[in-house]
Amino acid sequence: MSLEPDPAALRPGARPVTTGLISLVGAGPGAADLLTLRAVDRITAADLVLHDRLVDPSVLALVPPGARLVDVGKAVGANLWPQEVISALAVRAAQAGARVVRLKSGDPSVFGRAAEELAAARAAGIPAEIVPGITAASAAAAEAGEPLTERGRIDRLVLATGTSASGEAAAGLAASLTPGTRLALYMAMQQLPRIEADLLAAGLPGDLPVTIRAGVATGAARGLDTRLAGMARAARAAGLGHPAVVMIDRPAPGAGD
Amino acid sequence: MSLEPDPAALRPGARPVTTGLISLVGAGPGAADLLTLRAVDRITAADLVLHDRLVDPSVLALVPPGARLVDVGKAVGANLWPQEVISALAVRAAQAGARVVRLKSGDPSVFGRAAEELAAARAAGIPAEIVPGITAASAAAAEAGEPLTERGRIDRLVLATGTSASGEAAAGLAASLTPGTRLALYMAMQQLPRIEADLLAAGLPGDLPVTIRAGVATGAARGLDTRLAGMARAARAAGLGHPAVVMIDRPAPGAGD
Repeated sequence: MSLEPDPAALRPGARPVTTGLISLVGAGPGAADLLTLRAVDRITAADLVLHDRLVDPSVLALVPPGARLVDVGKAVGANLWPQEVISALAVRAAQAGARVVRLKSGDPSVFGRAAEELAAARAAGIPAEIVPGITAASAAAAEAGEPLTERGRIDRLVLATGTSASGEAAAGLAASLTPGTRLALYMAMQQLPRIEADLLAAGLPGDLPVTIRAGVATGAARGLDTRLAGMARAARAAGLGHPAVVMIDRPAPGAGD
Repeated sequence: MSLEPDPAALRPGARPVTTGLISLVGAGPGAADLLTLRAVDRITAADLVLHDRLVDPSVLALVPPGARLVDVGKAVGANLWPQEVISALAVRAAQAGARVVRLKSGDPSVFGRAAEELAAARAAGIPAEIVPGITAASAAAAEAGEPLTERGRIDRLVLATGTSASGEAAAGLAASLTPGTRLALYMAMQQLPRIEADLLAAGLPGDLPVTIRAGVATGAARGLDTRLAGMARAARAAGLGHPAVVMIDRPAPGAGD
């Protein structure tokens, strides 16, 4: 995949005449002031915006009145729009000269299924770009006022999804939690009991500290500090659900928890 | 660490009368348009800005003319300013009512040593916050037009530093590179020969695909595609140096590379 976006088409203010542009834009975790300036630029210049269900209303408010706004509703567990239909819609609009923004919560590069949409754009000869966003783990840490890494205690950060933590992958996930590591799990709330059981079965200590942060940067954030053994029950008791980030720490020896 | 920033002090436009605020702000990887709106807000309202050497001039250009700008020069391998002096300077200014911005390249939460500065602020009773930034791996992926994760091929992302990859930690790092994982190494260029040797000695295949991206989002970005065995020599031959992100892939079985 050596195709690079066409620099001419990406020059700010240079509106292409014959071909549009597809921008995969990170909407961040919620609050619009966590958008990058580049994301705001792409959103406010868009002709067509295809957005995930999790994108915050404060971000959608930036879409210009003349632009078409489509909720492709790709929230976890509700694939209303097949991926190929979303890609085809974006490509067709861009072929007609439109500036298409594919607005994804968080960072399109992190569990955003960006590769599939980029491949579709490139196969059709449409310039495509990724505009980075603040990923949920980073926003959760900022909101809690605690960084994701902490020198000497947490020197490694692992990002994974609840889905990729299933079956055989659970063993790999447990193996990645070596001392000095924080594991941040996305889209894991519905599978928390299984993940807890798998990680314990793989030999991880039950007293590993766990922090769950739900509703990050939405104005309704909630947090929970617990331990690996019992985390699923604690989350349910606290009424925490999707979307949330589950952070499991295995501190370096001697660093305490 | 349950101390939360004082909401009153963080309300936009509500300038505290007696006590200042310390904001650890992510400057992103380079280009100012990758700043978040919140970061721009904090920078343009600052009375004192303490910045790392790697912060891009286009970001520093946003600092208001009346503000004091101090280069605390914490580039890797040149710790001109001891951490405690930086913290003390920030605290003293905030105690005098200043809005202090501690501007760090990338995301303060990711290898930004934010914990130490937050602890110093809180110990002095100063409200402190983290304002997230785009971390280098995310910007590198966006710039290359390829996401960090790719469903079915790369379902897990590990962030680590070259420093934390040394000695005993190298074994942990190798263990984290289970099939389906991408490892993104920060601050690793000076130690690349040792990291390569350690990872190979730990049993990782020499043909793992490696992508090195230097000078991300600075207008002088350069990339190199190579393999684990020989990556240090290839980087040297290409003249790639700090700052750079080294991405080592171990794709899921059957996904190819």
